[in-house]
Amino acid sequence: MKAVYSPLHSRHDGGMELHRGELVPCYEMPRRADYILAAIEAAGLETLPPRPFTLETVLKVHDAAFVTFLRTAFDQWKAIGKDGFMLPSGFAARSMRQDVIPPGINGKLGYYCYDAGTPIVEGTWDAVLASAHCALTAAALVADGERSAYALCRPPGHHAGASTYGGYCFLNNAAIAAQYLRDHGSARVVVLDVDYHHGNGTQDIFWSREDVMTVSVHGSPETEYPFFRGFADERGEGKGEGFCHNFPLPRGTGWDEYSATLDQALAVIRDYAPDAVVISLGVDTYENDPISAFTLGQQHYPLIGAKIATLGLPTVFVQEGGYAVADIGTNVANVLTGFEQATA
Amino acid sequence: MKAVYSPLHSRHDGGMELHRGELVPCYEMPRRADYILAAIEAAGLETLPPRPFTLETVLKVHDAAFVTFLRTAFDQWKAIGKDGFMLPSGFAARSMRQDVIPPGINGKLGYYCYDAGTPIVEGTWDAVLASAHCALTAAALVADGERSAYALCRPPGHHAGASTYGGYCFLNNAAIAAQYLRDHGSARVVVLDVDYHHGNGTQDIFWSREDVMTVSVHGSPETEYPFFRGFADERGEGKGEGFCHNFPLPRGTGWDEYSATLDQALAVIRDYAPDAVVISLGVDTYENDPISAFTLGQQHYPLIGAKIATLGLPTVFVQEGGYAVADIGTNVANVLTGFEQATA
Repeated sequence: MKAVYSPLHSRHDGGMELHRGELVPCYEMPRRADYILAAIEAAGLETLPPRPFTLETVLKVHDAAFVTFLRTAFDQWKAIGKDGFMLPSGFAARSMRQDVIPPGINGKLGYYCYDAGTPIVEGTWDAVLASAHCALTAAALVADGERSAYALCRPPGHHAGASTYGGYCFLNNAAIAAQYLRDHGSARVVVLDVDYHHGNGTQDIFWSREDVMTVSVHGSPETEYPFFRGFADERGEGKGEGFCHNFPLPRGTGWDEYSATLDQALAVIRDYAPDAVVISLGVDTYENDPISAFTLGQQHYPLIGAKIATLGLPTVFVQEGGYAVADIGTNVANVLTGFEQATA
Repeated sequence: MKAVYSPLHSRHDGGMELHRGELVPCYEMPRRADYILAAIEAAGLETLPPRPFTLETVLKVHDAAFVTFLRTAFDQWKAIGKDGFMLPSGFAARSMRQDVIPPGINGKLGYYCYDAGTPIVEGTWDAVLASAHCALTAAALVADGERSAYALCRPPGHHAGASTYGGYCFLNNAAIAAQYLRDHGSARVVVLDVDYHHGNGTQDIFWSREDVMTVSVHGSPETEYPFFRGFADERGEGKGEGFCHNFPLPRGTGWDEYSATLDQALAVIRDYAPDAVVISLGVDTYENDPISAFTLGQQHYPLIGAKIATLGLPTVFVQEGGYAVADIGTNVANVLTGFEQATA
């Protein structure tokens, strides 16, 4: 399997985030990608740089004004004399209007973002765009005939909606990859999200579409981020009704229950009979993850890869979360090699 | 004029807040009340402690589950092993569901709160309840025949909605005072909000009611907190349509424009012909306020008091914002003495 990586990810180094009530150093840090790169190279994956792309595919899944906001946010921040990292302090939340976009940068932040844990810094846009290009390149490799490819995306993407960001995510790399596959030969695509956190952004983007199904296995929003999406009764709407599937699991879920639930998710995907699949690959289901509460061990990640391989589909792996930094590379590489061994 | 004050306010000492992108010590600090108390005593106001009250009036303007949340939030926080101050990190914002209340405390915080600048600490509920009792006592004094009374409320209240908190506010003291007046002889009550920030919570509470009109003169939400409420086109709905009036003003507004706008607001109130008025008294319109951008000088605050006196109505002053700590007491006392001199 080929892997796509850009060193530009390091330009996004968020500083501090507000996490469950406390301002702490960002869990989503550049070192995550360094560990993954080392592990996949050790596992024998060939690493390529991303190809250049226009914004064409990005703008099919994201609102144009939102993309402009992300691209220019830090300049607007500097224009009012600020520096460092940007976090919103007031949100278009419950009881607030959601039909006005404030012209000021502080209001705009709260309009587009839904948490206080996703800082924007000077280099964020460069990293975000490179991350999307990694996903696009991996999708292009698969569209051009590779059985699979891996995009080492950083920042991750699955919490970013059509016009919203949060959860360390800005552009939705998995959705962008899925859209690329749709535009290059695949009539039906599934995004399967195995990150610990619900892929609310991906769900939001494809909520009313039947050509891209979203399936997510994750920690229940009853106690886990993002709290307000990811319940089992969310099923899509309009043409998309029935093409969204959520499998929330309680804190403390171990391999047996996780594995059985993943099998259910894969059965839903088989019924849909897609032409290709995008995997939102988070490894924060790991027992030592500092912000998650499943109990999967290192030995389970090859099994996840092998299960995904049983779909027998062209597969784009897109990196999402995973915050047990020292082990993240091993866990990611284990999924990919598990997939390859089951495919061979 | 009598003033109502409780030392219990000091139990709410929030620690840090996320303010326009940076974690900073709370602008809304106990010292604010100390300065105000000293200044009003120096100005000759008689200070009384609050009387005890049941939650009856509070529960007429706030949702019962919300009040229970505020009362028990810190205990829930301690129950998951946390301490210090609580700030939400994920919100029921745009693109999120607003029809589910997460059972976990982190999700609940984001359901009820709409910013990352309003920490809850161990003593918050004690201070919040005492603050509401100050407002109720001042309202009772006026209902019982006093021309006016002042409630030294801390924490402030005008950003707290029926089931939402934010902007340093938890229970809406001004709304509680207005409800008390409604229940004790006043058929029509106006809440006039002269704080620099829009009184979105008060507007939310009385949005569908014609018996309490809300009028707010404030920094435009185009650039100022709370960003997503306080536009001129917000007019109430249902029975409340036409009984909400907003006068947003741009950054840099000085006395001439402010004064003319306040006259317009007072004209709207006269047309309504209420039986009593509650003033949400913020003095963050002051030129040296650290988080606001009007340019009123100390000499203008007696004039504000005198203008309010021209309504000739029973008047309850409820303390809201004001963060130029060293001058806040003088500015508050100036409003009150300006009112009294114009009344005499």
